[in-house]
Parts: sequence; structure tokens; C-alpha cells
Amino acid sequence: MPWAPRSESSKEAFRIEYDTFGELKVPSDKYYGAQTVRSTMNFKIGGVSERMPVQVIRAFGILKRAAAEVNQDYGLDPKIAKAIVQAATEVAEGKLNDHFPLVVWQTGSGTQTNMNVNEVISNRAIEIMGGTLGSKKPVHPNDHVNKSQSSNDTFPTAMHIAAAQEVNEVLLPGLKKLQNALEGKSKEFSQIIKIGRTHTQDAVPLTLGQEFSGYVQQIKYGVARIESTMPRVYQLAAGGTAVGTGLNTRIGFAEKVAAKVAELTGLPFVTAPNKFEALAAHDALVELSGAMNTVACSLMKIANDIRFLGSGPRSGLGELILPENEPGSSIMPGKVNPTQCEAVTMVAAQVMGNHVAVTVGGSNGHFELNVFKPMMIKNVLNSARLLGDVCVSFTDNCVVGIQANTDRINKLMNESLMLVTALNPHIGYDKAAKIAKTAHKEGTTLKEAAIKLGFLTSDQFDQWVKPKDMLGPQ
Amino acid sequence: MPWAPRSESSKEAFRIEYDTFGELKVPSDKYYGAQTVRSTMNFKIGGVSERMPVQVIRAFGILKRAAAEVNQDYGLDPKIAKAIVQAATEVAEGKLNDHFPLVVWQTGSGTQTNMNVNEVISNRAIEIMGGTLGSKKPVHPNDHVNKSQSSNDTFPTAMHIAAAQEVNEVLLPGLKKLQNALEGKSKEFSQIIKIGRTHTQDAVPLTLGQEFSGYVQQIKYGVARIESTMPRVYQLAAGGTAVGTGLNTRIGFAEKVAAKVAELTGLPFVTAPNKFEALAAHDALVELSGAMNTVACSLMKIANDIRFLGSGPRSGLGELILPENEPGSSIMPGKVNPTQCEAVTMVAAQVMGNHVAVTVGGSNGHFELNVFKPMMIKNVLNSARLLGDVCVSFTDNCVVGIQANTDRINKLMNESLMLVTALNPHIGYDKAAKIAKTAHKEGTTLKEAAIKLGFLTSDQFDQWVKPKDMLGPQ
Amino acid sequence: MPWAPRSESSKEAFRIEYDTFGELKVPSDKYYGAQTVRSTMNFKIGGVSERMPVQVIRAFGILKRAAAEVNQDYGLDPKIAKAIVQAATEVAEGKLNDHFPLVVWQTGSGTQTNMNVNEVISNRAIEIMGGTLGSKKPVHPNDHVNKSQSSNDTFPTAMHIAAAQEVNEVLLPGLKKLQNALEGKSKEFSQIIKIGRTHTQDAVPLTLGQEFSGYVQQIKYGVARIESTMPRVYQLAAGGTAVGTGLNTRIGFAEKVAAKVAELTGLPFVTAPNKFEALAAHDALVELSGAMNTVACSLMKIANDIRFLGSGPRSGLGELILPENEPGSSIMPGKVNPTQCEAVTMVAAQVMGNHVAVTVGGSNGHFELNVFKPMMIKNVLNSARLLGDVCVSFTDNCVVGIQANTDRINKLMNESLMLVTALNPHIGYDKAAKIAKTAHKEGTTLKEAAIKLGFLTSDQFDQWVKPKDMLGPQ
Amino acid sequence: MPWAPRSESSKEAFRIEYDTFGELKVPSDKYYGAQTVRSTMNFKIGGVSERMPVQVIRAFGILKRAAAEVNQDYGLDPKIAKAIVQAATEVAEGKLNDHFPLVVWQTGSGTQTNMNVNEVISNRAIEIMGGTLGSKKPVHPNDHVNKSQSSNDTFPTAMHIAAAQEVNEVLLPGLKKLQNALEGKSKEFSQIIKIGRTHTQDAVPLTLGQEFSGYVQQIKYGVARIESTMPRVYQLAAGGTAVGTGLNTRIGFAEKVAAKVAELTGLPFVTAPNKFEALAAHDALVELSGAMNTVACSLMKIANDIRFLGSGPRSGLGELILPENEPGSSIMPGKVNPTQCEAVTMVAAQVMGNHVAVTVGGSNGHFELNVFKPMMIKNVLNSARLLGDVCVSFTDNCVVGIQANTDRINKLMNESLMLVTALNPHIGYDKAAKIAKTAHKEGTTLKEAAIKLGFLTSDQFDQWVKPKDMLGPQ
Repeated sequence: MPWAPRSESSKEAFRIEYDTFGELKVPSDKYYGAQTVRSTMNFKIGGVSERMPVQVIRAFGILKRAAAEVNQDYGLDPKIAKAIVQAATEVAEGKLNDHFPLVVWQTGSGTQTNMNVNEVISNRAIEIMGGTLGSKKPVHPNDHVNKSQSSNDTFPTAMHIAAAQEVNEVLLPGLKKLQNALEGKSKEFSQIIKIGRTHTQDAVPLTLGQEFSGYVQQIKYGVARIESTMPRVYQLAAGGTAVGTGLNTRIGFAEKVAAKVAELTGLPFVTAPNKFEALAAHDALVELSGAMNTVACSLMKIANDIRFLGSGPRSGLGELILPENEPGSSIMPGKVNPTQCEAVTMVAAQVMGNHVAVTVGGSNGHFELNVFKPMMIKNVLNSARLLGDVCVSFTDNCVVGIQANTDRINKLMNESLMLVTALNPHIGYDKAAKIAKTAHKEGTTLKEAAIKLGFLTSDQFDQWVKPKDMLGPQ
Repeated sequence: MPWAPRSESSKEAFRIEYDTFGELKVPSDKYYGAQTVRSTMNFKIGGVSERMPVQVIRAFGILKRAAAEVNQDYGLDPKIAKAIVQAATEVAEGKLNDHFPLVVWQTGSGTQTNMNVNEVISNRAIEIMGGTLGSKKPVHPNDHVNKSQSSNDTFPTAMHIAAAQEVNEVLLPGLKKLQNALEGKSKEFSQIIKIGRTHTQDAVPLTLGQEFSGYVQQIKYGVARIESTMPRVYQLAAGGTAVGTGLNTRIGFAEKVAAKVAELTGLPFVTAPNKFEALAAHDALVELSGAMNTVACSLMKIANDIRFLGSGPRSGLGELILPENEPGSSIMPGKVNPTQCEAVTMVAAQVMGNHVAVTVGGSNGHFELNVFKPMMIKNVLNSARLLGDVCVSFTDNCVVGIQANTDRINKLMNESLMLVTALNPHIGYDKAAKIAKTAHKEGTTLKEAAIKLGFLTSDQFDQWVKPKDMLGPQ
Repeated sequence: MPWAPRSESSKEAFRIEYDTFGELKVPSDKYYGAQTVRSTMNFKIGGVSERMPVQVIRAFGILKRAAAEVNQDYGLDPKIAKAIVQAATEVAEGKLNDHFPLVVWQTGSGTQTNMNVNEVISNRAIEIMGGTLGSKKPVHPNDHVNKSQSSNDTFPTAMHIAAAQEVNEVLLPGLKKLQNALEGKSKEFSQIIKIGRTHTQDAVPLTLGQEFSGYVQQIKYGVARIESTMPRVYQLAAGGTAVGTGLNTRIGFAEKVAAKVAELTGLPFVTAPNKFEALAAHDALVELSGAMNTVACSLMKIANDIRFLGSGPRSGLGELILPENEPGSSIMPGKVNPTQCEAVTMVAAQVMGNHVAVTVGGSNGHFELNVFKPMMIKNVLNSARLLGDVCVSFTDNCVVGIQANTDRINKLMNESLMLVTALNPHIGYDKAAKIAKTAHKEGTTLKEAAIKLGFLTSDQFDQWVKPKDMLGPQ
Repeated sequence: MPWAPRSESSKEAFRIEYDTFGELKVPSDKYYGAQTVRSTMNFKIGGVSERMPVQVIRAFGILKRAAAEVNQDYGLDPKIAKAIVQAATEVAEGKLNDHFPLVVWQTGSGTQTNMNVNEVISNRAIEIMGGTLGSKKPVHPNDHVNKSQSSNDTFPTAMHIAAAQEVNEVLLPGLKKLQNALEGKSKEFSQIIKIGRTHTQDAVPLTLGQEFSGYVQQIKYGVARIESTMPRVYQLAAGGTAVGTGLNTRIGFAEKVAAKVAELTGLPFVTAPNKFEALAAHDALVELSGAMNTVACSLMKIANDIRFLGSGPRSGLGELILPENEPGSSIMPGKVNPTQCEAVTMVAAQVMGNHVAVTVGGSNGHFELNVFKPMMIKNVLNSARLLGDVCVSFTDNCVVGIQANTDRINKLMNESLMLVTALNPHIGYDKAAKIAKTAHKEGTTLKEAAIKLGFLTSDQFDQWVKPKDMLGPQ
């Protein structure tokens, strides 16, 4: 049985373009050119869902605009520069997304995507200027759009722009939203005393608010972790050209491009102090991925806690009531599957996996160029997007709606044997232990056992065993 | 600057459907129903590129068809069964792919995708039978399409069907194609003697054919590794229903469904001997992923070797001439970037990362259900597809076109100092070492040094130093 | 503050040995020689705990004995051969472990450990024959002990011998012991009906025996997974010498050595059909590690289930009573920390990490030699040993002593709302749902709600709602 | 064949101690007590090489001393406090390492190691005060040594102390030493112009100093990466006791202990602002491990480059001459195996694996306690130690001795075809390309081809093709 089609359906209208290998048919409704078409022929890997992330394409739009503006300062014909800027802006705004058919699994330098961008921008600029698509006149993809650039410095520049934007637009807002929601719950639950659990077993009490405060701290630190990696992500390779020396650029080009990108994005980009490192290694992305991996661990822990604390309705821990977002079971009311927690933990696992892919790619650069670029940025962007999105989804569809099941919490609290520790100063360790053992053996409460054993009165028990006195140092 | 749109553009025409939570607008041109729509509202995570893999959807089509046919044996109205079979077949054939908008990041049991399938098949079957979409009559998504089934057993069944098909249709054919191509090269190069390299340093000789025979063996074993995991992938969970007991199914249902799936796919599926394991764990997929991880290691090694052996044109090892598939450098002839090798190694890194995601998901099941199902199958299918596709691409665009640069190979061979070992039996270790040291110090060949030192004649050298006598045991 | 000493305390008595770099002091009570000492000077990495695993040393003893016996067939002086065999046997038996000070973090081919072995065996053989330590007479470490061998084929041979032995002596026995214990529990618990849990939430019933049968299946398949990888581990590189060609060996040497190793170990070793692959790649160990990674996933799942099912004593799920092996809390009886489960899950995490290290090492071989050998075997052996040991510990100290808390199990079972599904055929879906909703809302049992609503009698309820009828297909 | 002994040889002299489970034989020459012995019986996993890292034990010594001093402020008998301080100091100094037999694979909270420490310190303090070992008088392991503490806060405190010390004493000094050495080489090589390589293929020139400057930057950022994670590692859990509330401690205890630890170690430890997070999650260690993972990527890249650039002597790239540290091949002079690079890359792979183990452990905490503590700290310490040590070894035994093979570098440089780009402005693209193609085809130099084609004179070539003008922007 044949399965999913792997390539685009055949288009009917073509124009003929040439590269040094010969002539190629280019769909007439596309701005891309021969080199892009050749890549689609040579890299039939993974299909449509494996296309270069649109964030990279859009970052390229920003970069190409910035480069054109700086090139104009250095002598590029203002009319050409203007057309490039307009076309690049359209790329940056995502208006030309359909013109980028290449997959991630191409050359490891991302050269083919850089050429795809150059071809689209030059053809669109040609169109703007009234020329003929594919003519390379008056705007040449290499000589004008790629001027003072190389795939080797533009692609890592686009990687950093895309990563920084995704972090700032999706990941950090998502984390902060979740942090705020958890903080709200921590305050809301600050007076609810509950049994603690260590080793998954009953332990001494804390408040539900304290428990949630741990989650708040994890996410707060998660934000700090991401932010602490960003200074190195804000460094751009542009100006390094082919091997990091900056051959064929002008003094000052690198700094000006970085400043222009910073202006266009509102993010504090600077030129990388060492372009050799910026081309040959992508440690900054491995580092960022590592921070996201830590955030994934935090989220896995929090989501696991919430689904276990919300387990039931009858045979689980049942301390939390989770919002019901969709029909769980058609017949069993109260069966609320913690589906948002499941999305969170699946994303966490994915991010851990993505991190290993990024690590393996990041460790395998050779000489002047790391050639795992498209794979690395794909995974970094995927992690940032999934983490950011799932934080929003988790917050909106789960966290804000969590209710404490106070009846259940109180019941477990009162039945607990751990409270016996409060009696030590009053009746001594041995008698306290005997109370606990009796209660455990006979299945009664501590109070019942204590009174039955005659070690203290009901009033004394109530006076001495106060969970709320067990919530902090004294 | 706003970035890529995250959701589908708004549709204009809707029908109203209901689930137990209230009314929902369903696009009138879609077969899916309320539960699908609700999932799109609750799980805005990752966007279009994160949709449930089409292979899973198509596997569901096969399963639903099989279940309908077996249900008919157990009493399902033949008219309804026939309509379900027709609709399910369309799903299996990929004709209804546009009706499955859900992302991977949903409930971890895949329930929402199972319901998406049930809704699409029931509505399409209703349409076939002349009914009204959304009416659930005469074909009900739960009562008829999902009859004797639960998400908890259907989703893992679809996972196994999809994985097995991708392995058989993409991964194994790709590996075998590569194995054949490498085998061809191994034979072609069987008489070319070259310098060996250990620790990346010069070593004793071997033939280029022998070197390639190692690659052949790796891929051949890769096929064996994948195949050795398949017996457990061919086991289907269908018939386990909600927790593995098979509640609400009929005796024999599980076996019949597996047999029907086997018939429809031509693959040796059987019913899983223990349904509790089949729902609560997905070790079989972790195992398959582990085999693919091993294949990724093999491919990384082979592609690395080939790009280093093909490095140059002047300053590298230069023993292989790799086919030139696209313009490398516009100015430098002979600069052939090993782009196919780069795609291979990027895929290898991705597969290693996917494997960790699968491992983390596979280890985190609880009680009667593992709820990392969609994430796990996404990664397994991605690895299988990428590996299979990249093997084909690598074979067609690189391996078959590899040529030996015999001049270079011979030159390096003849200049090598390692051949001196052949003189030991004739002139003794000490003199042989002195020859090598002299040649190394003075930058001459062994022969020149030997003659200069007066230890032997030119004829003797040629007679005694025969690389082709160093290629095997004696 | 200075911290832990990194090297052995200085010894007082030395002998002087030489290598081509000059003279070196060798402790007079050690059999090793100059090359070993030089390695300790050049690789001060990690200290004593990072020494080459003793299993590798002992495997070398087996290999060196086998090689000596085969070399005798090909002409090695029988007296020398006999002394080597005796010395090598002592190494194989672990009697000379103190003479192997080298760490894993040495040359990636393991050459220094091979020389360490050669030096120890030659000196011990010299001693046996009445010679002087360090004299290399009458038994030379290279010419005799290492005859027909190279580090490049002996080290991978020792890797495979060590791995195969650890798998057969520790890992598989541990897994089988655990499988048996779980199988015993599955039978013991076969009549105990309990609530199932999916998504961590209450679901339909199964027996505790059925639940454990899933664990049995996981471990049983784990054994099968390990065993399915062994055919490739049983292939030995010996006879490939420096680059896989077998230079300097005799025809038949490889086969005879493998046969001898098989005889000495009782394991079905054969000579590797392709020595190039056997030196340049260690895919067989990546594959084995992948199987162990799958087993780690199984164990993580099982141990997690058991600790959650045993959580309490009052505020957890409490269905299992775990054996108490050590004082938990000094004051709280019944607080049994699931410490064995914790050891299991920690080991599982370690094995997953080890697997990534093995994967990275396995993917990074170059040309004729993979130079991550010591690291790879260290991790493979560590995983095998930890998994095997922890299975035994878990079985003896936890699994065999697990008791079902039948009171608690029955209570949860009877309180469950999920049983309402059994009423559908009798009173219809709507009334059944109303019963469940009422019970959930009012916190009563289904039976109480059913009677209160007047939908059926107490007798009818008891007759229709029978969990034991919900345990399989009908 | 029996293999390595798994446990200590039996001791002859014992004393009898008791815990709540009964009597146990304790070796009379050991300070530890019953709970330690019981752990050795219950956790026979991995053997001696799997013992709790000595750094953790020593960190516990620091913590216990600090706690005793603070407890004295809160009323602990000064004589007892003094004896505890003395005993704890001995533990901190590593003098009592032999008294800590427990393995990592114990309870996941590290309780047994905390008790091991309490037992050793109390018995040693009893001895100091003239009491009887095992009597628990006058110094009780729980009441005095563990006063105001719980395993749940002391173990994570010891984890952070140990990690911070290892980072400051081993990892960062190692990295800085390597950075300095690379920086020295970068300056030394600043005038050596060489061919660049991208995609492993010939590219435009750069200086060898520039190439090394990329490595310097990687390591420099590595230091920054590690340091940026330390603020969270410097936060101590002490004072949180059992669940984070600080039950049974005094107000101010946490802050005072942290200050005391800071004083004793000279490191800026503070009390963790949220103890719930500090017990239930170990994100700070996942984060630190992530930074080390990034450093591992950097080291892998650098070491790979150096071994490839140093490959040869005849058939490799041969641009670097690496120091020869040990006999390479007995017969082949000049075969210098890059053994230090191999140790570096093996360590890098191990650190990547350790990181996954830490990640899996870090993500799997439940409720108030993460119970993967011993495994996590073992891996973090292992990574820090191996990275630090291997940096020193690599620096001393490789980097400082690297020499540029200037003859080879110049030869490759002059033979390169890439320099033709310098002719474009003078003779135009087409003629330049023709020169390059001719040279490539005929195997001549660019200069030879240029003259032969008559496009320019020898003088013009020398004047226009100046690699040193290609090293930066203009």
C-alpha cells in the first residue's frame, strides 16, 4: 500500500533557470531559483513536515534587510538596496513562507537555505523593480543580496536571531505566565495544611501553598536559567564570512549589521567577539538547550505532582481537583484525566531528546565550520516553542482552575500518624511511639489510640497536636 | 513583530455539534466532530508541524476497518460495517488526511486522535449511507466505529502498525539499498591498496575494498538489528480495551483483529500475549528505537569516513572523489562539499536525540497505562523515516558515484613509512627502524632512505616491500 | 582545603626499567613495567575509582592464555607458552588485580592496558621460569605474550569477552531471578480484584495478578532483548591485528583463538566475519547497551508502580505492603520507605545515561579504529553489573516480601464509581450515569446512590455489579 | 569461572550493635554502626567502585561541623559540640574515608549515608571523650550529630558543597589552565597563515593563531557558563529538615549554618530561599551538568581538530606536530598517536552520558523529595572531576607541546586553489575560474596555471595573491 506523498504535487507552469550544472524547471509562481530546486531534488528526506523552520526563514529576512542597509552605507546602489529591504521585510513578516520548500536535512551549513533566501529576495526585488524573474538583474542573489556575506556566517546569524526571538516571544512569556499562575495558587492555598510526602510516603505536614511555592521557585529559576544563557545567544556571526576572518567584508560591517539587527528586533544583539568560534561551534545553542533541558525537568516534576495529587476520584490521592476540559469517560463522572499534565510531560521528554540531538551536533564540528547547523536550530526552536506553548496551555487549561479538595486534605491530615512527633516533648518518645504503633496496627487515629492507651486526654491531644505549629522553625 | 500564524485560518461555514460540555462550531467541510474541535482549543501547542503523524492516522484506518469486519462477525449490522469499512479504507489510503488537525501534544493516551478517527469515519460512513453529518446516525462514533475498543488499546495498536509499516516500507528498503551500493563499491575497490589509518594516524595498508567491507558489514548488521526487534513490534494491543483485561470485547476478538490487520498489511501481526504490558509499557518501541540508534551510530561513522577520505581537493586526505551534486563554490573547482554526508550525520544526531525522548517516555508509564504514546510514536516514526530516506539520498547522490582517486591513494601509499615493517625479516628490526627514522627526518621515501643508508638495493626493496602481501594472514 | 589524594601512596622499593623514552622507576612488588608506569604519569585522570574494570583485565587473561595456546600450535616454544598460560590464568582468575593501575581515560585504543597485561604476564611468566623481572627474558611482552596480536584487535576481543561474561553471569541471572519472583507474585495475587488506574486515575478493575503479569512480561522480554543482541557480541576481533587485515597472523589463528576462548568460557564465541568492522566500530556494544536501556525503562516502570501502590501508610494508595528492611522513621511505624525501588530507579537512570555515553563513543570512530574503546566497555559493564545486581537486591529485599493489603484493595474497589458500567445493560446508560453522578456528588457508594434513587434493589445491585465478571472478554 | 569478589573480605573482630531490627555485627575497627552495616547487607549493588564519592563524605564533614557549632549557639553542650567538631573535621579532611563503605545505590534520599556519617562522627566523638564505641553516649548520632537536621536537607546540602568544591578546586582551575595554554599557542601561531577548512574541505586562509583563538573563546565561555550556574549551587538546603518547612529547627539555624559553611569553605554559600524546591528538585545540579555538557562539546571539537590537524606523519593533514608522550609504534617513527585527544574525547562522551543520567534523575522527583540524590551527585562529581583532570592532562601532555609544521602548512597553503579568489578584481571572475579549473585538472599550482594560460606574470601573481591580505575585513 503506498503511503503519504513525499513531494509536492507537480505544478504545471514553469520557467527555466540555470545554474552551473545546467537548466532546471522552476515553478513560475515561486520566487526561488535553480539552487533551491536542485536542493529539493538532492534531498528528498522527511517530506514537508521537515522543512526548515519558518522562524529561521524570517530571521534571514531580518538579517538580509540589515545587511542591505549596511551595504548601502558601503556603496550598494540605493535603488537596489531599497528593493532588497522591501523584499527582505516581506520575508521577515512571513509573507513569503510558501517560497521556502527546503528541508532541514540538506547541507549542514545551511547554504541551500541561504541561497533559497537570496533567490527569493532577489527575484522579489527584481519584481519590485520591474525586472524579469530569474534574470538576476538588476538584483543578483549573490552579488547584491548576499553581499559581504557567506552562508557560513549568515546561517548561524539567522540561528541566533531565530532562537533569541523564540525565547523572547514564546518561551519566556510562557514560563512567566505559568510562574504567575503558580504564585497565585501558592497564595490562595497558603492556609491549607496538608500531609507532606517523602519517598512517596506519608511525612510531616506543610501547607499546600508551601508545596506550590516550590513549583514557583523552579519556574522562576527556569526563567533565570534561560536568561543567563542569552548573552552568548545575542552574539552574531555576521561579518565572519567564509571562515571567520571576514574576508570580503569591510571594517565595521559586522558591528553595523549587529546594531541594525538589534534595532529591527528590539533585542540586544552584538557582533560576536570571535567569529572563528561563532562559525565552528554552536556552544551557545547547546548551552541554551541545556537550560531548556533543566526547565523540562522542572516541568516534568511539577506536572507529575499535580496529576498524582489530583488522582482519583476515589482511589487516588485526591488532594487537588483538576479542571475538566473535555469529556473524560462517558459514564464515570469525576474521572478527569490530567490531559494537560500529560502534554507537559510529553513535551518535557521531547525537550530532553532534542537536547541530546543538539549536544551530538554541537560536539561534532570540524575545523572552521560546524555542519550540523540546520539540525541544531530545528531542535532548539522546537524545544523553545513546545515549552512556551505548553506552559500557556497548562496554565490556562489546568493551573488556574486547580482547586484544593479541602475535605480530603483534612481527612488525610487528621488520619496521619506522623503528627505523633508533636507529642514527644510532652509524653516522651516511647509513649508517643506506642501511640503511633497502636493506631497503625488497629487502624485508628492517633487521638483514639492515645486516649485508649490513657496517655493523655482528648483536650491535651488537641492542644498539643497542632499541625499549624509544624510548618516552620521555631 | 508578530510571527508565524499558529492556527488555521478561520473558516466561514460551520455546523453546530455538541459534546457533554456544550456546543461547538465544526467547519462544515470537515468530517471531524466536537471532540476533535475541543482538542484543538485545549492544546494549542506547536502548530501545524506538530500534527499527529499521518502514518498513525492511516494505521488507524487499517485498524478500524479490521475491527468493523470482526465486529460484523460478532453481530454488527452489515450495512453499518460496510460503510465503516469503506470510510476506514479511505482513511487508510490517506484520502482524508486533511480531517485530522490534532497535534501530538494532547492527552498522552492519544484518546483525542482515536476520537478524531471515530468521528471522521462515522461522519464519512453516515455520508455514504445518506445521513446527516454530526447526527451520529446511523453510524455512531463510539457505539459502532469504536465498538469493542478503547483508546487505550487502539492507540498502541495503531502505533505498532504505523511503526511496522514505516520500518518495512522506508527504513529497511533504505538500509538494504545502501548496503547493496556499498557492497558494489567494496567489490569495485577490491584491488586498490591504500594506507590504513588508526588513531587518525598512518598505519599499515589494506584495500579500499576491505575498508568499504566494514561499512557493508555495519549496514548488514543494522538490518539484522532492526529485524530482531520486530517480533515484539508485530504484537498488537487490540482487544485489551481500557486496562488490558479485554472488558467489553468478545472472546476471540483480539486474535481475529490481529489476523485481519496482518491480512490487510501483509505483515505478520499477532495479538499481544499480555495486554497489560501492551498498554502500560511501550518497551517494544524503546527497543526498536534502540536498534535505530545503533544504525545511526553506523551511519555517522561511515559518513564521517567518507567525507574525510574525500576531503581536499588539495589540503585533505583526497583518497575518494565524491560526486558533485550542486554548485559548491562559485570560484573554486574541485571544492565538492560532502553535503550528503552532512545530511546523514545530521539525521544520525537526530535519531540519537529521538531515542532519548522515546526512552524517557517509555520509562514513565504508570499503572495500567503509559501516557507518552503520541510523543513516542512521533519520534519512532521520525527516526525510521529520516534514516530510510537519508539512506536512499546518500546512496543515489553520493555512494554510487564515489570514485577512488588512485593517483593520490598510490602516492600516499608509496610515501608511507609504515611499509618498513616488511623489511624486519630481511634486515632486522634495528636497520629497518633506522631507515624509517631517516626517511621521516629527511622527508624522503623509505626506498630512498634505504638505498642511501646502503642497507639494501632498489631491487631488493621492490621485492621485499610489497603492500599486497600485507593484506591478510599468511 | 586539600581534598582526596589522587594517586597511590609512594612506594619505597623500585626497580629501573626502560622504554624507548628513557628510564622509569617501577615498584619492585609489581609485575607491570615501563609502559604501564608511563601511562600512570601521562593520564592522571579521575583517580583510583576510574581504573579499567577488572572484568576487562580478566578477559584479557583468558585471551592471552588462548593466544599462547594457539601460538604454540604455530611454533611458540612450549616452555614459554606454558609459562604464559599459567600467568594468564592467574590474571583471568583475578589473582593479579593489584598489578593493573591504569585508568579508563588513556589512549582510546586501550593500548596501554594491553601493554599492562603483556608486561604483567611476561614478568610473572619470567618469574615462573626463574628469570629476572623487567629483563624481558625469556618471555618478552611483545614478541611472546602479544604474539600475532595488536592492541587494536585484542582490546575489542577483551571487551566482548568481558561483556558477554557479565551479561551471562550477572545480568541475565539477575533478570531471570526477578522474573521468577514477579511470576510467583502474579500467581499468588491472581484472585485479588482491584481497581485499575489509567492516566493515574481510577479505571475499571483487574486482578493484582494481572497487573503483576505485565511486569513479568516486561522482564521476560527484557531477557529476550538482551539475548537477541548476543550473537554479535559473541564475535571476536582477535586475528585482525592492526587494521583488520590480520597482518602478522597466520591463517587459522583467528578461528582457533575464538574456539579456545569459547572453550575456556563456555560461551559460544566465534571469530568475527569482518575484522574491519570489528575494530573500527563497536556497534555490537551500542546494540547491547540499547537492549539494557530498554530493560532500564521496564525496571523504572515496575519500581515506580510498586512504590506508588505501596505508598502510605495512611495518605497513599496503600494497596501493597512492602517489606521493611531498615528503620524508616524513628517515630512513625508503618513508614516503610521503598528504598529498593529507589535503588532500582537510580540504576535505571544511570543505565540510560551510560547508554548515551556508549552511543556517542560508538558513533565517533574514524577509519580503521574506533578510539572510544575503554570508555565504551566501562559503561557497558557498569550497566550490566548494576542492572543484574539491582535485580537481585530488589527481588530478595522487596519483591518476594510484597504482600497485598487486601482490606485496602477491597475498600477502594467497593468505593469505586467505575463499576457503574456494569449496570448499563440492565437499567440503561442514562440511569447508570445518574447513579454515578449522585454517588460522586454526595460522596456515597454506587450501591447507596442506586438504592436511594430507586433504580434498583440491593440484591439486584449485588447480582449485577460483579467485578469478577469484568476481568476479561466474554 | 568465578569473577571479582563483590564484597570486603570478612573481618575477624566485631562488636555487637543494635538497631530497631535487631543485633548486628560491626567490625571493631570501624566507627560506623548498625544502620551502616544494615545498608551493606541490603544493597549489594556494584561493589567497591560504586561507593559514595569521597567528596560527598567530606562535604558532610564540613556540614556536620557547621551544624554542631551552630547548635552550640542554640544550646548544645559545648563539650559534645567540641568533640563533634573535631570528629567532623577529621571526616572533612578525608582522614576517616575507610569508614564509609556504602554504595551510591541505596535509598534515594541518601539517608543511609547521612546515618553513616552520624554514626562515624558520634563514635569518633565518643572515643575522643573517652566513651565506648556503639554506646551512643555521650554523643548520640541522631540527637546530637544530626540535631536540627534530616537526611532530606543534609544530603542535598552535602551535594551542593561537594559540587561547588569540585567545580572550584578541579573543574575551573583545569579549564583556566587549558584556556591559558591555548591562548599562548594562539599568540605563538599568530603569524602562521594556513588554509582554512569548511565542510572538511579546503577553504580560504586564516592564521593558525586565529584558528586557536576560536578554541580559546570556547573554553573562556565554558568558564563563564559554569560560573553562571553557580549562584544556584551555592544555595544550601540545610534548615529545611524533613519536608522543607524546617520543623524541629530554630529560627536562624538555616542562615547560620550556611554562613558557617561559607566560612569553612571560602565559597559564597547562602541558605536556599525556598527549601521546598531545594529538597524536592535538584534543578541546580541539572543546570550545572548542562553547563558541563556544553564544555564537553567544546572539548570534543577542539580535541578532534587537533588530532586531525596533527594526523600523519605522511598521509594525514600534518599541520600540527603533537608531542610524543609514549612509544607509539615500535617500528614507525613519527607515528604519534594523539592519545591525550583520545582521553579528552572519551571524557566528553562520558560527560554527555552523565548529563542524561542527571537529567532523568532530576526530572523524576515526587512531592516533597527527589529520591535520585546519590546517583545525581555521583554523576555531577564525576563529570567535574574528569573534565578538570583531563584539561590538566591535555594541557600538560599535549597543548603546551604542540608545534606548527610550518613547512607542511606553507606547502598546503601554496598549493591551494582557493587563493584564486584574490585575482577576481584584477583579471575578472571568468579568467580566475579558468585558472583554478586548469590547475585542478592538471594538478599544478595556481601560479603555474596562471602563467601557462598567459593571464598574468609571475610577478603579478606574487603581488596580487597574498594570503596575508585575506585574513580580515578591509
